[in-house]
Amino acid sequence: MSSSNPNRTPRDSAVLGEAARVPEDGRPAPARLLPAPARAAIRLEDVLHALSDPVRLRVVRVLASENGGRACGTFGLPITKSTATYHYRVLRDAGVIDQWDEGTQRLNRLRRDDLEARFPGLLEAVTPEGS
Amino acid sequence: MSSSNPNRTPRDSAVLGEAARVPEDGRPAPARLLPAPARAAIRLEDVLHALSDPVRLRVVRVLASENGGRACGTFGLPITKSTATYHYRVLRDAGVIDQWDEGTQRLNRLRRDDLEARFPGLLEAVTPEGS
Repeated sequence: MSSSNPNRTPRDSAVLGEAARVPEDGRPAPARLLPAPARAAIRLEDVLHALSDPVRLRVVRVLASENGGRACGTFGLPITKSTATYHYRVLRDAGVIDQWDEGTQRLNRLRRDDLEARFPGLLEAVTPEGS
Repeated sequence: MSSSNPNRTPRDSAVLGEAARVPEDGRPAPARLLPAPARAAIRLEDVLHALSDPVRLRVVRVLASENGGRACGTFGLPITKSTATYHYRVLRDAGVIDQWDEGTQRLNRLRRDDLEARFPGLLEAVTPEGS
């Protein structure tokens, strides 16, 4: 399989341990995606649980309104850094967000396409304000 | 206010302690609706939490496929009666289902209209098989 296969996703690259590169669709390049379930392994119950907390729902709504990666410290959450880290982790483990490190920052991005593919309409129902 | 006011809902009747009667829309008559949040008080986080459990999601999907009230013992849940009672209670407290007693049975009904009014598309997203 060629490393330029357009069907390979950033997650595939991470799993395969390849060097980071900018995907052709222009999304931010995950230098190294942190472990998260593949699309097919995302469970509705886990996603709903991840979304059932006000802080995590706020993170998702912020991410739903933008396309790039957003650094952990920039959500304006009224909680300690360690608590925020926990919440990001819950979202990532459920398959709601991707996380990756760039330099000293940990970036977050909503797995919009994966969620829409698995549970059509769910994101729109829980982020009524946003895109 | 006349007791035949068509704008009064079964919940209004329960709150007002009136005798049960069949509403004009043909829905089952709650002899006495158990306490549950009014439509405007239903919180998305609570609904998502209520739906984040496999047993509760199964109950909701069964209820989503029918219109009448279904007795607690008839869902075929692989859990004890007391555990099931707990799960129904979580769903009711979150505003996902109504419960009421008729004779020796406790009946359950999805609050479809309330949920759709508060969070359009959510029920459809979590009950892809059903109505």
